[in-house]
Amino acid sequence: MVKIGQLAVVGATGAVGKEVCTLLERRSLSVGTLSLLASARSAGQSIKVNDRNITVQELTEKSFHGVDYAIFSAGGGVSKKFAPIAKAAGCVVIDNSSAFRMDSDVPLVVPEINPGDLDYHQGIIANPNCSTIIMNMVVWPLHRENPVRRIAVSTYQAASGAGQAAMQELTSQTADVLAGWPVEPKVLSHLIAFNLFSHDTPIGQDGYNQEERKMIDETRKIFHVPDLPITATCVRVPIPRAHSESINLSFENPISASDAREILSTAPGVRVVDDAIANHFPMPIEATGQDDCLVGRIRQDVSQPGGCGLELFVCGDQIRKGAALNAVQILECLAG
Amino acid sequence: MVKIGQLAVVGATGAVGKEVCTLLERRSLSVGTLSLLASARSAGQSIKVNDRNITVQELTEKSFHGVDYAIFSAGGGVSKKFAPIAKAAGCVVIDNSSAFRMDSDVPLVVPEINPGDLDYHQGIIANPNCSTIIMNMVVWPLHRENPVRRIAVSTYQAASGAGQAAMQELTSQTADVLAGWPVEPKVLSHLIAFNLFSHDTPIGQDGYNQEERKMIDETRKIFHVPDLPITATCVRVPIPRAHSESINLSFENPISASDAREILSTAPGVRVVDDAIANHFPMPIEATGQDDCLVGRIRQDVSQPGGCGLELFVCGDQIRKGAALNAVQILECLAG
Repeated sequence: MVKIGQLAVVGATGAVGKEVCTLLERRSLSVGTLSLLASARSAGQSIKVNDRNITVQELTEKSFHGVDYAIFSAGGGVSKKFAPIAKAAGCVVIDNSSAFRMDSDVPLVVPEINPGDLDYHQGIIANPNCSTIIMNMVVWPLHRENPVRRIAVSTYQAASGAGQAAMQELTSQTADVLAGWPVEPKVLSHLIAFNLFSHDTPIGQDGYNQEERKMIDETRKIFHVPDLPITATCVRVPIPRAHSESINLSFENPISASDAREILSTAPGVRVVDDAIANHFPMPIEATGQDDCLVGRIRQDVSQPGGCGLELFVCGDQIRKGAALNAVQILECLAG
Repeated sequence: MVKIGQLAVVGATGAVGKEVCTLLERRSLSVGTLSLLASARSAGQSIKVNDRNITVQELTEKSFHGVDYAIFSAGGGVSKKFAPIAKAAGCVVIDNSSAFRMDSDVPLVVPEINPGDLDYHQGIIANPNCSTIIMNMVVWPLHRENPVRRIAVSTYQAASGAGQAAMQELTSQTADVLAGWPVEPKVLSHLIAFNLFSHDTPIGQDGYNQEERKMIDETRKIFHVPDLPITATCVRVPIPRAHSESINLSFENPISASDAREILSTAPGVRVVDDAIANHFPMPIEATGQDDCLVGRIRQDVSQPGGCGLELFVCGDQIRKGAALNAVQILECLAG
């Protein structure tokens, strides 16, 4: 049982914040005082944690006195303003936003991969992007055995990545389409009901959007391979809360599908779902609510020479391992 | 105006058959006699073509006397049995199933790509797989300018690829999920409402499913490059009738995004939708009901050396260019 004196959850009423509260109940964590913090608009709400109703308080500059750890999941703007304030108050911040991920003095950590990076933290630890975490969970165990020389990934990303309001938009917009009512996107920038679209983050000079850039840059940082060749295409699909990814890998040495399956079957946080006879492979509906990332369609890439290529298909709960669980695991590492 | 004496549409009450009827109205085709054929179960239904109600007749061994051309869209079993019968009766068959696609005496044709292959037909011409057609429409124009050395594709395939009943299942199952009712897959083998899954065709020894194998083998045949390295991951998504594909290409020589955009902007049957500032790229909802395949996210692949890689995202109407339109275009080539 890991003991924590005082913990704050910033953005407690959001999709990830709520999941963090749920996980605090399930994990081996004993929290002395739990502060749930959110914007003035959400303050006053009550959230039940471990059978105690806790009132959400407004996040202010004074919220972090005496707080040992804070998990931030309230967007980059809130993190940029309040994480330094929390740090100055002696609180260690686990930040779920992209605000500090690429800062050289901020560890970017997936506990199954690079827990040692926590050693160099200066008060802020960054939780990686959800698509990055889910991809890395299955690529890292292979990379340890046989260095990855290139990653090409295409994603099938759930609405939850854009927050609770986007998940609600998927549901309500789908109902409206089925009823024949006119629909107009409000939270997401394009229609999500029975539609999909390129991830609606800004596009850089090189044509890659910010989500793709995160997958590339963050993977390099987590793997400690600053020049690892990676390409990504990020797509939003009409799925509530589990991301899927089609991952094509090139390795330094030959690797067979059965080698890969064996490595992945013992990888922590990974479950192999790869039944060709039953045609049963990872699906968002089965990854939802699971701690593990599901991996299947493990096969040697017939287009790559020398047996050095692999194809994989992975599904992971975007809110769980893609965000809240990874943050709570970091907390467990720090406080354990 | 292309004149045809007698045309039969086999599988006239299916999703593709109905679309063929619609296209006969829109295209420059003058058909003397149109026979609509289907199973005994569907015979007797009436379909309006060019303001005339035509009664669907039962497909029998005698259906092809005097028929000049037949478009088959009733599945592989029907094609295997009746296409040879039609051919023996002097009818030229355009077959939408996979039954004859890889036969050496059967041309596999996308009219924008290899219309010359029609010359060697022996009475049967195969219409390629829908995902193959949509991919080839954008890869071929680039390949002509700069030989493609490898294709790696991940698909986002609509329910329509599994027929009309699958499209209906998507709608009704989604409504049931929203209503909180229990759901059970009937047409598709896994839940399609708010879910996605690996294309549910049998998996071969090499781990690739039949849909992926079609994309690989058919592209090689259409391009006349029998050993072209191709890998594919085919996934069914909860979208009604337009397929999307994330395509990663390797070329013999360097190619810039602007080179590719210029080539694709003049390619027949292709429309470039690639507005990075408005974040507007191909979407199934905008490809639905369109003859053209939409292509965007055109960018140089940062993971490939020497500027020889490209990333593309394409959407095409599965029933239209993925099936019915391509078949009607073949008919126009043959009869023109």
